[in-house]
Amino acid sequence: MNSTTSISPILIDGQWLEASASSTFSATNPSTGEALSEQFPVSTWADIDAALYAAVSAFRAMQDKPSDQLASFLRQYADAIEANGEAICEAAATESGYPYAPRLKDIELPRTTGQLRKAADAAENGAWRLPVHDAENNIHSVLEPVGPVVVFGPNNFPLAFNGISGGDFAAAIAAGNPVIAKAHRLHPATCRLLAECAATAAEASGLPSGFVQMIYATSHADGERLVADRRLGAAAFTGSRSGGMALKTAADAVGKPIYLEMSSVNPVVILPGALEERLDDIATELTTSALMGAGQFCTNPGIVVLLDGKHTEDLIAQLGEKYTASPCGTLLGKSVMDSVAEGQGALTSAGAETLTGGGAAEREGYAWSNTLMRVNGKRFSESPEALQTEVFGNTTLLVVADDVDQVLDVISHMEGNLTGSIYSATDGSDDELYDAVAPRLRPIVGRLINDKMPTGVAVSPAMNHGGPFPATGQAHFTAVGIPASLRRFTMLASYDNVRPHRLPAILQG
Amino acid sequence: MNSTTSISPILIDGQWLEASASSTFSATNPSTGEALSEQFPVSTWADIDAALYAAVSAFRAMQDKPSDQLASFLRQYADAIEANGEAICEAAATESGYPYAPRLKDIELPRTTGQLRKAADAAENGAWRLPVHDAENNIHSVLEPVGPVVVFGPNNFPLAFNGISGGDFAAAIAAGNPVIAKAHRLHPATCRLLAECAATAAEASGLPSGFVQMIYATSHADGERLVADRRLGAAAFTGSRSGGMALKTAADAVGKPIYLEMSSVNPVVILPGALEERLDDIATELTTSALMGAGQFCTNPGIVVLLDGKHTEDLIAQLGEKYTASPCGTLLGKSVMDSVAEGQGALTSAGAETLTGGGAAEREGYAWSNTLMRVNGKRFSESPEALQTEVFGNTTLLVVADDVDQVLDVISHMEGNLTGSIYSATDGSDDELYDAVAPRLRPIVGRLINDKMPTGVAVSPAMNHGGPFPATGQAHFTAVGIPASLRRFTMLASYDNVRPHRLPAILQG
Repeated sequence: MNSTTSISPILIDGQWLEASASSTFSATNPSTGEALSEQFPVSTWADIDAALYAAVSAFRAMQDKPSDQLASFLRQYADAIEANGEAICEAAATESGYPYAPRLKDIELPRTTGQLRKAADAAENGAWRLPVHDAENNIHSVLEPVGPVVVFGPNNFPLAFNGISGGDFAAAIAAGNPVIAKAHRLHPATCRLLAECAATAAEASGLPSGFVQMIYATSHADGERLVADRRLGAAAFTGSRSGGMALKTAADAVGKPIYLEMSSVNPVVILPGALEERLDDIATELTTSALMGAGQFCTNPGIVVLLDGKHTEDLIAQLGEKYTASPCGTLLGKSVMDSVAEGQGALTSAGAETLTGGGAAEREGYAWSNTLMRVNGKRFSESPEALQTEVFGNTTLLVVADDVDQVLDVISHMEGNLTGSIYSATDGSDDELYDAVAPRLRPIVGRLINDKMPTGVAVSPAMNHGGPFPATGQAHFTAVGIPASLRRFTMLASYDNVRPHRLPAILQG
Repeated sequence: MNSTTSISPILIDGQWLEASASSTFSATNPSTGEALSEQFPVSTWADIDAALYAAVSAFRAMQDKPSDQLASFLRQYADAIEANGEAICEAAATESGYPYAPRLKDIELPRTTGQLRKAADAAENGAWRLPVHDAENNIHSVLEPVGPVVVFGPNNFPLAFNGISGGDFAAAIAAGNPVIAKAHRLHPATCRLLAECAATAAEASGLPSGFVQMIYATSHADGERLVADRRLGAAAFTGSRSGGMALKTAADAVGKPIYLEMSSVNPVVILPGALEERLDDIATELTTSALMGAGQFCTNPGIVVLLDGKHTEDLIAQLGEKYTASPCGTLLGKSVMDSVAEGQGALTSAGAETLTGGGAAEREGYAWSNTLMRVNGKRFSESPEALQTEVFGNTTLLVVADDVDQVLDVISHMEGNLTGSIYSATDGSDDELYDAVAPRLRPIVGRLINDKMPTGVAVSPAMNHGGPFPATGQAHFTAVGIPASLRRFTMLASYDNVRPHRLPAILQG
């Protein structure tokens, strides 16, 4: 069934079935540029329709089931991923170019299973569903599962954000919804191995057969049709702004909830006192954060805002040396590399100067030289849209402002972001500047950070991996952090004068 | 300033200013059809731009202010409305055709001031902002105000849902946001009187001058531009589906939050055992609920689903008598009456039969005869879209199904609604039917009701006055019920490694 000569089957209604495919595709090893042999189907609408049909049945079948069954599935799935961790991480390393260890085996895999287990706890606990009782009026409300959820995972986390195993998957399932996972074209074999674990765990825990399903790919038109389908409860997408906006437009037109994580340049404002105090440390922190994983993180610090001065010039000089001396990571694929080149072109056209890097790295596979660019604050405010182009890779834009008013002006032109960081001196010498900058930065970011780079998104109940548009489509909710991330896949339901024994279990007694 | 020969000024940045008007309009007394003399401006973009500018300043000025200032404003405003209650209710009665008492003075006014005072309590309390602490990681999160909110009030609640005094206004203010209220063309003088109270209370409580503003009307294009403006935090709209969808499209395109309450037919399913048990009571309850306020309620029971049988025919006969014998209430205006005629035409074209009523009432002003229509379940499922046309007025469509499967089929074709009611016998004889119907009805409604008609929306913390599209644009949130309704006007904000003294007050200590 999974031989290299046949086409991999899709997971529909508890069965591995031959897809109704319009074409096939295969992945590439980005470290070498070589095509991999396994063939995967691009599904037609017939497959999606079958998945939706099964998902609706599964949703109905689960409506009166206790949530510990969901918890049991999530835990068994986490166990299965660990039991098959070696094969899964090998496939992910081949398909992503990320190191097998520590990145995949020691960081991303434990994060993935940890999320699944935290989601299991949340499914059992239920307090996050915000039950409210008004005994006097006999009205009770609670967040209820919204219905079948389709999850489109991104290219950059083959495990922890995968449509079949990542944060959105875990949150949607734990909230009580069937998931139709859309695998990613850059790592389909990883998705297959994960889905095999999921299917086994789903059966073992007695979930209805259509509760966990996976297709590999669809046409763009069918994806848009899917997120607008009457039978769907909600959609979750992590990926490019263009892809996200196409799905958002389709879903919005029919009022279907869609949660998007799209683009973010994650501004880092470094105040002068901080540089005076710890310039070397900051240069190291920024280099590490900006270049890890070849910069392919949603929270990569893409724009650094500095105030003109000697320390700033010293920092820029140090960064230049470090960027040049650091190894260039592998990019996830040709499309990512093309996009980096295009993004840098946009920044250059808008007036940014390239200090180091700026071209393909001289090595095998897909890699770009670590790139540092610079523009002044006035120029930024003249072309704010172009100069906020997200370059998803190992590129950093330094914006040097003349004074704090120009810093505020730069911020006032910024779109919504996942994060915003401010570095300030520990002796209070930056406090006045901080008090000017923070109130302007906070409302346009989901997470305000002090004295730390934005990469490293803790799976914390207080985390917000979200933020104002276009960072996401809905600034109320976070994609990381349990239980808050579960709330996305719910609707508010009120029970008015409903007889006590007819209330859902969570509202009884 | 408010003489009948000049044009009423608008409330911008704490001042009553002459509008930059493209034209003027006046209201009509719908009980008589006579035009009222006071002239109100249709603002151009210049007025909106000035309001946005002032609102942004006010929002910034309030960022570090304690929330008891908001509470003080809300309470002083409630007091002022009561002090001026006679004049306000007289104006509202003239402009709406609703009885001065009990509807306006004894029901809607106390509801309005009660909401403002509950919102004041919520502003002070803050627990609804869901603060979350992760001390180990030093990450803290809380819902923060989203920024200036524009509120478009509906035609049917001149006080309790008014853009300048209603539930959305109270919720947006209590959550810490400036409000730009858009008055309603059908009751502008009522809006003016309320805004005068609001302006006085805002000044007395020391709110920044642009925190509470009001314009009367704009072009459709300017309204769409406003909800998509960068400076706006969010929009709230209660009104027609066509108006709401135009604003939604504009806001969605730029990812700006918008909360819409648009259309709902509020299905009521009456099971046979309930009819056998208490047919007369049900006939009275339905007649009262369907005809009160001439049916001009968002939760008016527009569609009643019945199972074929003798009791159903008896009920229909009783309803016919009651509808004919009941007085016909005044409709809010010519546009409402035109829309009722159009809606009935749509139902008729789709196969519904008119049992009683079906034309203009023979009396002065705008009034329609109480109308009862009927269609069978099979026919409904053949033209579900047309037969769900909301007729905003005193018209009820009875859907008679052959059996429970046809009831389920009818429900499966229904769009999202604010409410869904099920009447069942108290002796358990309907329980099997209930258990079949309720799981299908609940996911498509915001509030599931037992043995009660949907009108009467308690201001309860457990209330959901919301529901799946197209009832609203966002099924997570309620427009009625404090504190839950406040959450609409917030965004999630996380503070990561932020120094303790820099955290917002609610997260400190």
